[in-house]
Amino acid sequence: MRAAVEATGQLDERGRLRHLLALEGLPRALVEELLGSAARFAAAPRARHATLAGRTVANLFFEPSTRTRASFELAAQRLGATTLNLEAERSSAVKGETLEDTLLNLQAMGVDAFVVRHAAAGVHARLAAVARPGVAIVNAGEANVSHPTQGLLDALTIRAHKGADLARLTVAICGDLRHSRVAASATAVLTTLGVGELRLVAPRELLPDAARGARCFDDLDAGLTGCDVIMMLRIQRERITSLSVPDDAEYHRRFGLTAARLALARPDCIVMHPGPVNRGVELASEVMDGPRSVILEQVANGVAVRMAVLDALLGRGG
Amino acid sequence: MRAAVEATGQLDERGRLRHLLALEGLPRALVEELLGSAARFAAAPRARHATLAGRTVANLFFEPSTRTRASFELAAQRLGATTLNLEAERSSAVKGETLEDTLLNLQAMGVDAFVVRHAAAGVHARLAAVARPGVAIVNAGEANVSHPTQGLLDALTIRAHKGADLARLTVAICGDLRHSRVAASATAVLTTLGVGELRLVAPRELLPDAARGARCFDDLDAGLTGCDVIMMLRIQRERITSLSVPDDAEYHRRFGLTAARLALARPDCIVMHPGPVNRGVELASEVMDGPRSVILEQVANGVAVRMAVLDALLGRGG
Amino acid sequence: MRAAVEATGQLDERGRLRHLLALEGLPRALVEELLGSAARFAAAPRARHATLAGRTVANLFFEPSTRTRASFELAAQRLGATTLNLEAERSSAVKGETLEDTLLNLQAMGVDAFVVRHAAAGVHARLAAVARPGVAIVNAGEANVSHPTQGLLDALTIRAHKGADLARLTVAICGDLRHSRVAASATAVLTTLGVGELRLVAPRELLPDAARGARCFDDLDAGLTGCDVIMMLRIQRERITSLSVPDDAEYHRRFGLTAARLALARPDCIVMHPGPVNRGVELASEVMDGPRSVILEQVANGVAVRMAVLDALLGRGG
Repeated sequence: MRAAVEATGQLDERGRLRHLLALEGLPRALVEELLGSAARFAAAPRARHATLAGRTVANLFFEPSTRTRASFELAAQRLGATTLNLEAERSSAVKGETLEDTLLNLQAMGVDAFVVRHAAAGVHARLAAVARPGVAIVNAGEANVSHPTQGLLDALTIRAHKGADLARLTVAICGDLRHSRVAASATAVLTTLGVGELRLVAPRELLPDAARGARCFDDLDAGLTGCDVIMMLRIQRERITSLSVPDDAEYHRRFGLTAARLALARPDCIVMHPGPVNRGVELASEVMDGPRSVILEQVANGVAVRMAVLDALLGRGG
Repeated sequence: MRAAVEATGQLDERGRLRHLLALEGLPRALVEELLGSAARFAAAPRARHATLAGRTVANLFFEPSTRTRASFELAAQRLGATTLNLEAERSSAVKGETLEDTLLNLQAMGVDAFVVRHAAAGVHARLAAVARPGVAIVNAGEANVSHPTQGLLDALTIRAHKGADLARLTVAICGDLRHSRVAASATAVLTTLGVGELRLVAPRELLPDAARGARCFDDLDAGLTGCDVIMMLRIQRERITSLSVPDDAEYHRRFGLTAARLALARPDCIVMHPGPVNRGVELASEVMDGPRSVILEQVANGVAVRMAVLDALLGRGG
Repeated sequence: MRAAVEATGQLDERGRLRHLLALEGLPRALVEELLGSAARFAAAPRARHATLAGRTVANLFFEPSTRTRASFELAAQRLGATTLNLEAERSSAVKGETLEDTLLNLQAMGVDAFVVRHAAAGVHARLAAVARPGVAIVNAGEANVSHPTQGLLDALTIRAHKGADLARLTVAICGDLRHSRVAASATAVLTTLGVGELRLVAPRELLPDAARGARCFDDLDAGLTGCDVIMMLRIQRERITSLSVPDDAEYHRRFGLTAARLALARPDCIVMHPGPVNRGVELASEVMDGPRSVILEQVANGVAVRMAVLDALLGRGG
């Protein structure tokens, strides 16, 4: 988990959201406002709105994605926006154009917001730096640095089950923390919201370099004991070069969440996962499909959170 | 042609369509109702409707397709639905997620219907088994097992030219029957609608294992003689492993439909083909472009049939 | 730069636009009418229209493209059309279907206009020849032959800065003229509009075979001197087989537009480029980002021009 720089420039001079680049540095009041808006959207999932009518939201994904792109596209459509899917892998980049120039071009065509996923850290900030006033950059995944809408949907889901005051909660994030932008953004938002205790639980080789106020555990049983919320993470094998990471079966034996291990947590503990889940590796099917799993609620909340973000960015007349 | 299992679970407890998985086992009254609805849509091809306003139809194609995907997308758009194209090849499957979990995730985002094409038999039934009430699975092509909307558009086209009573008709399906989901679904729907005589005409090595009530011919001239309807099929070379299948020129000589051969059929015989056509292989250009060809009508009817199916599944308030 | 044949069949019997295949042979009055319409759309870039409501515009791109496809898609959406992106690389062509048959099929589904990019010369005319009345073909890039909407947006941009009378202007098109459909279409439209002097400036090996009324220069400084408008072109390395073309650094030294060289042109000379730009090769960043650059205006005008074209083709009730 890289330490994300506090993103500058994502608020305008009046403190309103101008881009969503990172959760680090966002004022708590603004986070609460976004979560409140998202909760209202989540409560009426079939409702359609017109606050983004006449606006165009472009998906610019430089890493493959089905679910996050779909979630943003559905969010934009439910607000009345037109959506545009840009095939970034096939883009002008191959013809020698800079990323900034690609953005300037698409912006000149009248795109109002860019939902961007990129494997390189810092791309979103570079794009925000050249976007013209009124055009928003939304971070939909940045290297292993941040994934702010995921962090917000995690917070929304926790609050839906545990209430708005997180001060008495113990939350454990477990798994491949070193390579996880999800963990980075969850850590940021939970810290902002004043979570009681945050635990990072992973095999030693997958713990992050910096704990940033969290307690670290390299033993899953110890890490889970007494928790209110467990967030499991997928092993990002595509980002791992070390040979010391155990294979799937060994990983499951040491760090997979089973019903037996879940019993170490509080009885009303909820189980979360950003997906996609590798059943039988980080999460046993009995837990994933069990009564404490809120994984599909997270997915539904993802659309609501993205509606709230797009509405905050574009819904005021931009 | 594999024997498709009669799909269970595609009707609700009141006998209404809940998913469209296969034509086998669909009551004749329901097939007639779908065809009647499709005929009305076909009669006003430029009309736009709002019965699916606020609904989202997702295309989830695990096999490449231009025309079927486009046909479903246009059908959904004409009913007022929002469409979502999911890039299945790039999907979370590569990250270790099960197909069922992919569906549960997208469903949690608020997708109302999934139009699915997959090269493996049984996938559609598996997805239908986990879909929540009100969410529909539409089979847009399943292995070599079934392609129900193709079967319906074939029936619609035949009825448009020959009337609703098929009892006096002789229909010949000719070509690569062994690898054809199109032939399987056409056989099913024509049987349901009480076709007079169904003939399966193919080189011996491309005849299906089970004739299912049809007469089999391995000689094209014999098979065509006296027919009212000829459905030609493409050789699915991508599904063929046997070396014994003749090359294109030899195939055309033995099994290509030419004007001379067409003269063996009834004078008002219509010529059909599900497309894409390999001109000069299974079908001579003179026949394809001739007055008896209804191939492009089939294409137009395809949009109408898909509108009827989506309207039946989602248009009642789901 | 191949000599484009004057496209026949793009006007109907009353002289109205039926397809847009090439700018060669389009009457000046019609070009002026399109530019006038485009200028009105450009003046109100956020306005939405309904002249194409109920119509479907399909993008059929056989060459990769981000910006041109996006520009057409945005143009269609702003006129109220439904858009359909056909994945041409994955299309039925691979199953042995002819291009004409692909078009006839999609047309039978109810598509009203096809925006087509193809690497082979003549494809657009072939498709126009089989399109049924009311269905329009729009050339979005044809081999190295033509790119008519690019030519129109170039003319629109020049007129916005220099006025409608081009008779006193000197315009230099500089760079890889041999492989450029952009240069071909710009030459055609500027000739139609009566440009004062047209210069083609390139290394000898990249000059076109036919000058078509232009003055040719193989020295950039000489070519730029006294110009009102400079259009720089990218080296189309993907189309070049000759080894004699200089590398990027050498090309920049000999043919890159720098501030020093720009000083040879008139003080109010504008600098254009069709994009994507290779900074530091054909164009120095100081010029691209400088006050004389109108490159992003070209991009914005591209959407307006495409709106004008689609509106002319489909907006009258087709």
